[in-house]
Amino acid sequence: MKTALAIDIGGTNTTVALVNNNAEVLVKETLRTSEYPDFNDFVEMIYKISNNLNTENYKISGIGIGAPNGNFEKGTIEFAPNLVWEGIVEIAKAFKEKFKLDVVVHNDANAAAIGEKLFGNAKDFSDFVMITLGTGLGTGIYVNNKLVTGKYGFAGELGHVIVEKNGRLCNCGRKGCLETYSSVTGLKKTAIELIKSDNYDSKIRNGNIKNMSGKDIEICASQGDELALDTFELTGKYLGEALANLSAILDPEAYILFGGLANAKELILKPTVYHFEKNLLEIYKNKTKIIKSDLPNNDAALLGAAAGIFDYLNKK
Amino acid sequence: MKTALAIDIGGTNTTVALVNNNAEVLVKETLRTSEYPDFNDFVEMIYKISNNLNTENYKISGIGIGAPNGNFEKGTIEFAPNLVWEGIVEIAKAFKEKFKLDVVVHNDANAAAIGEKLFGNAKDFSDFVMITLGTGLGTGIYVNNKLVTGKYGFAGELGHVIVEKNGRLCNCGRKGCLETYSSVTGLKKTAIELIKSDNYDSKIRNGNIKNMSGKDIEICASQGDELALDTFELTGKYLGEALANLSAILDPEAYILFGGLANAKELILKPTVYHFEKNLLEIYKNKTKIIKSDLPNNDAALLGAAAGIFDYLNKK
Repeated sequence: MKTALAIDIGGTNTTVALVNNNAEVLVKETLRTSEYPDFNDFVEMIYKISNNLNTENYKISGIGIGAPNGNFEKGTIEFAPNLVWEGIVEIAKAFKEKFKLDVVVHNDANAAAIGEKLFGNAKDFSDFVMITLGTGLGTGIYVNNKLVTGKYGFAGELGHVIVEKNGRLCNCGRKGCLETYSSVTGLKKTAIELIKSDNYDSKIRNGNIKNMSGKDIEICASQGDELALDTFELTGKYLGEALANLSAILDPEAYILFGGLANAKELILKPTVYHFEKNLLEIYKNKTKIIKSDLPNNDAALLGAAAGIFDYLNKK
Repeated sequence: MKTALAIDIGGTNTTVALVNNNAEVLVKETLRTSEYPDFNDFVEMIYKISNNLNTENYKISGIGIGAPNGNFEKGTIEFAPNLVWEGIVEIAKAFKEKFKLDVVVHNDANAAAIGEKLFGNAKDFSDFVMITLGTGLGTGIYVNNKLVTGKYGFAGELGHVIVEKNGRLCNCGRKGCLETYSSVTGLKKTAIELIKSDNYDSKIRNGNIKNMSGKDIEICASQGDELALDTFELTGKYLGEALANLSAILDPEAYILFGGLANAKELILKPTVYHFEKNLLEIYKNKTKIIKSDLPNNDAALLGAAAGIFDYLNKK
């Protein structure tokens, strides 16, 4: 049994854990990322925490890090808008020097894909795409049993494929990106648009629209609310169409959905599969799976981070 | 020095050649594909021709085949609309039995990509996309130094990514596929649309529009004809936008253009590069090359077919 130090870095919290290669999170602890504006302090604190966590004296094989805008090729975090550190952070180098261990960095979605490949539903898939549907839409792509990082380490940004010319404004500054439609954020925007259209007698109309969550829309939809159901339909339509286009490029065996929106299960899966199949070129029809990840929501990011370093060590 | 039997199968003609791994076409002969509606007769004729061609008694290492709808994974040609044989043709099996040699089948665009990787501008690229711009638009994709065939052998159909909802009718039966805009066929369609728009005083208006070729439009554009220039602009716009989306998925080092439309050089490269860069997400800007293939037009398909079997034998 091998043990890795897994670090899941988010804008708000960072979780540090010991994870074994049987997909078990042994111990974990969380700190507030924003309290460490000096990156060196952050490294020191993780070092201290990991020593405190390791009461059983496990031999740590390496360090796996999952972070927004994490770049595997360069071992950096680059221009992550939600993190306290600006510009390019040489995170792999810093942890390597401090811990004297191998360090691998992946962005969240790639870490999730590796987690799915090592520990989840993708064990037997050589070619699949992991799709994380949260605030944004991230993708981790496997081709020929290997993660696709691209020449410069930034492959897998399906969320920023433009699906609607002059469409919704995206955080990236461009218009019509897929993630402005097919994500929790996109779901909420669609609901608000439908509320404004005045065509529905919906429960959602009566609530506090500004504070409405994706979960609120999901609950209404599961109770048969038409506006909420149409919101999911449109969200799945954009996703299904985008995946049909992606199949014409990669012809994968499966798409695996993960994250807040994926937890709505059939509410999002059904319209996605319908519009996917409807838009496929004939040769691709009726064979590609679209399924939900079964990784535990709470620990998936840690498992992904750990999988990143296990995968690296396996191939070393 | 190794020698392969290369077979380039087209709707009209099939060319058979001996090609060495120094990218030299040693001898070649052409037959009319449609004269062999019985596939067994076709195999027999190729066998006869290859024996006649091999006067120098080269030892043949294997057979590389490039064919429309060629499926590498299955060794088949499947439902190729322009070929005389219907349904699924077990071509690799048939040639293997007749010649007692290893046989590899690729579709045209994948063969071109392998040719570019072994013999052309892509020698040093681990991640690139070959784009053939002829009657249609085909793509061969390399990721991590390997051709992407997908789970079911049909990866690389960028020409059938839908770029315009309810757009031009495609031969595949769907609407708005990229190849209805960015291909020689697309170029002609755009020119005809612009002629109908009545906004131009163009040479092209005076000719026989129905018989107008891509080359005619190219010549007019190179002479400064505004309608022809705008035709290339729009053709490159669709291509550049589609490649910007593809970069968000694969982050490749280069796109290599090949075929009739690529021969127009700067006329197509300039608008393509402009709209590509304009539509890229920030992290991808100013690094990905869009270049023209330097493989010889006449022999590129044969070189690609030969490269397919050399590549296979190298990895065996």
